[in-house]
Amino acid sequence: MTRQELIQQIFKKKSFLCVGLDTDLKKIPQHLLSCEDPIFEFNKAIIDATAPYCIAYKPNLAFYESNGVKGWISFEKTIKYLNEHYPEHFIIADAKRGDIGNTSAMYARTFFEEMQLDSLTVAPYMGEDSVTPFLQYAGKWVILLALTSNKGSADFQLTTDKENERLFEKVLRKSQEWGNIDNMMYVVGATQGKLFADIRKIVPHHFLLVPGVGAQGGSLEEVCRYGMTEECGLIVNSSRAIIYADSSENFATTAGAKAKEVQEQMAMLLPKQ
Amino acid sequence: MTRQELIQQIFKKKSFLCVGLDTDLKKIPQHLLSCEDPIFEFNKAIIDATAPYCIAYKPNLAFYESNGVKGWISFEKTIKYLNEHYPEHFIIADAKRGDIGNTSAMYARTFFEEMQLDSLTVAPYMGEDSVTPFLQYAGKWVILLALTSNKGSADFQLTTDKENERLFEKVLRKSQEWGNIDNMMYVVGATQGKLFADIRKIVPHHFLLVPGVGAQGGSLEEVCRYGMTEECGLIVNSSRAIIYADSSENFATTAGAKAKEVQEQMAMLLPKQ
Repeated sequence: MTRQELIQQIFKKKSFLCVGLDTDLKKIPQHLLSCEDPIFEFNKAIIDATAPYCIAYKPNLAFYESNGVKGWISFEKTIKYLNEHYPEHFIIADAKRGDIGNTSAMYARTFFEEMQLDSLTVAPYMGEDSVTPFLQYAGKWVILLALTSNKGSADFQLTTDKENERLFEKVLRKSQEWGNIDNMMYVVGATQGKLFADIRKIVPHHFLLVPGVGAQGGSLEEVCRYGMTEECGLIVNSSRAIIYADSSENFATTAGAKAKEVQEQMAMLLPKQ
Repeated sequence: MTRQELIQQIFKKKSFLCVGLDTDLKKIPQHLLSCEDPIFEFNKAIIDATAPYCIAYKPNLAFYESNGVKGWISFEKTIKYLNEHYPEHFIIADAKRGDIGNTSAMYARTFFEEMQLDSLTVAPYMGEDSVTPFLQYAGKWVILLALTSNKGSADFQLTTDKENERLFEKVLRKSQEWGNIDNMMYVVGATQGKLFADIRKIVPHHFLLVPGVGAQGGSLEEVCRYGMTEECGLIVNSSRAIIYADSSENFATTAGAKAKEVQEQMAMLLPKQ
């Protein structure tokens, strides 16, 4: 998906919501456990109910891999379902990969060619040759970890170097030598508040993927105040607060209502066009 | 596997070789492609031929995931085969994972409880709560990326902070607050030469997992000169130079001979006991 297509979808739907498909067998409604593939059944119902209110889906690979081979089958079925029924939605594999060049190239083939995902989250620690293999596919995106939402983000990401640059700032600056606004986004946690303003000084036009609204305590208003651009520039993810809002047989309807609530907030926060 | 068991195995076999199972359908002998599971057949033959000369195996997850569901089946069969037939070998999942706490906890369950692997490589960028969930299992190990073998390692890992500490040094120092010599190792690329001496100043007793000997150009002698401890303290990985040494039907015998060559070099480099 191109940048322009993404922006069009955001303003058409008046939403920049990404629904995180962190599907956990221990948390989904119990009546689904008798299905042949409970994870896929859950995802399908959640997707059908939330699709009008969101512009992206983000399955977190860890949740699928934790079920081994069965989990991978559920993951592949989910991606296939999205590509067939909701081709206008942006699909993010939250995988946090990153390895030496030849290995990153294998991951890129898997996620971009075989699975037809739009984007992949990548960890920057190993530098340029761990990231660039993902940038060789037209219309596909690297979403590089910059400043994450968790407590441990302070351990290394905020380290200030001799030139007075913090590590997350160096990642933002340096990675612009490898990619551009058409193939690279950054993960910035919603819990980082005013630091969004510092981030916008370095990447004024890049899209940011923002997890951490909802269960992790980030504020949507604050993220928009400091991080939004004229083209929106934000994809805000919510997982648990939407998909696990209701554990009854009515779970999908409730998830849809929750997504609609967030979409309505977002409509008011979007820049006028 | 405990630290003591690992050390005993090293001195018993006079080897600190890890064979990297980077199994790629495009590189394995063509006659195997008619088997039902060519990747597993290849791994099984390589393992049987090299087991006397190595103390560890390291499947790189990327190579398995690139084959989707089938790849996961091959991976799980390989781990099961190792656990059943070679329980004394240390198994490393080269996965380079690392995510927010609840997600890392899911990965830990997958790799340590369900798959019964001994260790997992983890990326440090997200800090403490992305690493500690892996440290809750007795006899299991985190192998944290410190200074990798690739060119891009210079992009961020060598950044010097205001206290004159390089990022890889901060990772080594800080992570000792989370783990210890019995549950944590570090990845240090064989291409880093004399930097091993700087690393040993911070982690004098930890085991280091050393990729990059062979195809990537690192020198075994140099790694040992600067990185070896009285208890060895090194697990040196070789993948391509062993497993793809021969593409004929004789591939496993040749791989065994290559592993034996490396083991014989290692026997001369090990400290006397």
